[in-house]
Amino acid sequence: MLTLASDFGTPYPAAMKGVILQQTDARLVDVAHDFPRQDVRTTAFWLREVLPYFPPAVHLVVVDPGVGTDRAAVVVRAGEHALVGPDNGVLVPVARELAPDGEFEVFEIRGQEPASSTFHGRDVFAPAAAEVHEAGVEGFSTRPEFEATDEWVDLSFPDPDLGTDVCRGEVLAVDDFGNAVTNLPGSVLDTLPEHVAVNGQEAPVAESYAHVDAGQWLVTVGSHGNVELAVNRGRGDEAFGVEPGSPVELRAP
Amino acid sequence: MLTLASDFGTPYPAAMKGVILQQTDARLVDVAHDFPRQDVRTTAFWLREVLPYFPPAVHLVVVDPGVGTDRAAVVVRAGEHALVGPDNGVLVPVARELAPDGEFEVFEIRGQEPASSTFHGRDVFAPAAAEVHEAGVEGFSTRPEFEATDEWVDLSFPDPDLGTDVCRGEVLAVDDFGNAVTNLPGSVLDTLPEHVAVNGQEAPVAESYAHVDAGQWLVTVGSHGNVELAVNRGRGDEAFGVEPGSPVELRAP
Amino acid sequence: MLTLASDFGTPYPAAMKGVILQQTDARLVDVAHDFPRQDVRTTAFWLREVLPYFPPAVHLVVVDPGVGTDRAAVVVRAGEHALVGPDNGVLVPVARELAPDGEFEVFEIRGQEPASSTFHGRDVFAPAAAEVHEAGVEGFSTRPEFEATDEWVDLSFPDPDLGTDVCRGEVLAVDDFGNAVTNLPGSVLDTLPEHVAVNGQEAPVAESYAHVDAGQWLVTVGSHGNVELAVNRGRGDEAFGVEPGSPVELRAP
Repeated sequence: MLTLASDFGTPYPAAMKGVILQQTDARLVDVAHDFPRQDVRTTAFWLREVLPYFPPAVHLVVVDPGVGTDRAAVVVRAGEHALVGPDNGVLVPVARELAPDGEFEVFEIRGQEPASSTFHGRDVFAPAAAEVHEAGVEGFSTRPEFEATDEWVDLSFPDPDLGTDVCRGEVLAVDDFGNAVTNLPGSVLDTLPEHVAVNGQEAPVAESYAHVDAGQWLVTVGSHGNVELAVNRGRGDEAFGVEPGSPVELRAP
Repeated sequence: MLTLASDFGTPYPAAMKGVILQQTDARLVDVAHDFPRQDVRTTAFWLREVLPYFPPAVHLVVVDPGVGTDRAAVVVRAGEHALVGPDNGVLVPVARELAPDGEFEVFEIRGQEPASSTFHGRDVFAPAAAEVHEAGVEGFSTRPEFEATDEWVDLSFPDPDLGTDVCRGEVLAVDDFGNAVTNLPGSVLDTLPEHVAVNGQEAPVAESYAHVDAGQWLVTVGSHGNVELAVNRGRGDEAFGVEPGSPVELRAP
Repeated sequence: MLTLASDFGTPYPAAMKGVILQQTDARLVDVAHDFPRQDVRTTAFWLREVLPYFPPAVHLVVVDPGVGTDRAAVVVRAGEHALVGPDNGVLVPVARELAPDGEFEVFEIRGQEPASSTFHGRDVFAPAAAEVHEAGVEGFSTRPEFEATDEWVDLSFPDPDLGTDVCRGEVLAVDDFGNAVTNLPGSVLDTLPEHVAVNGQEAPVAESYAHVDAGQWLVTVGSHGNVELAVNRGRGDEAFGVEPGSPVELRAP
């Protein structure tokens, strides 16, 4: 199985699929091709949320603002999964999640002479992902074009500040519904009252969206286990006035 | 074969696919993941138009504004097809279409302890759909987690009022081209003149879009067999000033 | 393998897939379903860029502003590939690319009685594509419903005017990043200085986007081998004030 994720829109992902299908009969599964353009951090967040639900697979990820520069191309082995993409940190948070004890290995892809300077998804990453799939997540690293390395670009999400009266964190991502996902663990809501103040504005804590009336604000624990700012049948990001990176302060009102 | 439909955008459908692929090797086919957000009625319309073209399959449908409340999770057996989703009516019109004589059976999904209150697509419906696929459309209902029920939420589209001089109906949906699909059967155009009045505005009846000039309004029989309000190379909904739910009156001018 | 491309958005492509899967177990791969609505020329350009990366396949293409008129439905055999779609030129540029020496064959699809006048993607092209897939790219043409023809609608892109001091061409397409792809071959940049004037405005020639600062304009050779007008982490079409069809003049500043 080989999954694909990018910020390409269409039709560039199809060129990658064509290249891959020249090399392998693997099942292909699209994760998303509309990740925010060249937004490595948000893509890294969503990959960490979604890829762990997959059975062992090779995951091709191309959100690559540095294409054609000297940034490395890498394969990351994380447990029974392999991640293929640019060395810009986008693969790291999900690799930590997928690898037992968070211990993953990084291999640089060497010896490529890409046909273009602007589309390494097609010319470097897709052929490498197909090759890793064919060689296997265990076996690929014996091939000379993959060289183990200890140098790679890290990326991690900020830790929240969890006090007894006040919790401070930030918005990591906003989903297509407008729900604002924070880095505050859902457990912080256990010790807070039924209404909380979010950045000074009161909102009820609710089990899910439809536990409040349509159009009403709420704070809930999202499917990722984190605190989420939402509006039933509306957009939480607009109501709470937040976007990725916005600070979030949660306290008793 | 297992189809997927939702209002999720991306990347949540990929999480459902990961869960499913842990349980089955079924072929997966996306129907759409951009159905109008939490719009049960419009989704029900499109499913009724599209799913009958598929060979026997399990169809996973998650447009679920009541996620996390006490609305039931159900499997509907309709002929050789099974539909898996929330009990909010979204599955009913297509079930009537797929079942011989419109007689379908409903089973409540029991005993789930979902990991989240906000993403039952991933935590309830995807595993159930995979299980139904593996057990088979005939066989799944012998398993204890599926319990036959006679209580379920109905949903039907309004019948048009077909007079000899005037036909009154409404817009059921607007497609991505802007064509406004009504609930008036195409046969009403047989007895009307070559020009008709739609809500008081004249338009020609045409066999297809390009039978009128670019930018011109027309009334035609759409691919679903119903009267459709359209503009050649333009948007019918904007020209006729209608949206889903708008009344449509058709008469000789 | 059977690829699908259209300007349908959703969910109409799913109806085509259902029809196809009634007839064949072929692997289905989406190329794109958001090609600019009824824009035959832009779709023809992207197909030419993307489909040659695929292994031998049947390619279903439905961008069909003349649906329901007397425009023909055709299958084009180009090397080991077959292209199925309307006879409006959309298949021609990629057929020239796929066929050895550019010599392709055209067959008219005969004897169809489509269920609708407005959705031949579902009622004519999908069943024909499935049939071509099952009969094989060599074998399908012995069947009576495919009739060889020498009459078909041509489509080609304009040749650029390559002078020693000035090169004149035009924008063929703008991709989802906003990069404006011209018909000027990348080789013209070899003889130009490191800065060029594009329609009178100076911009550096760069190997890839990130070789200039974020927000800066650049001229590069895109993944198709043509000159591309771009902005690092921005939209080239907006910066250079161009859209498909815009003239592009390139010279030393």
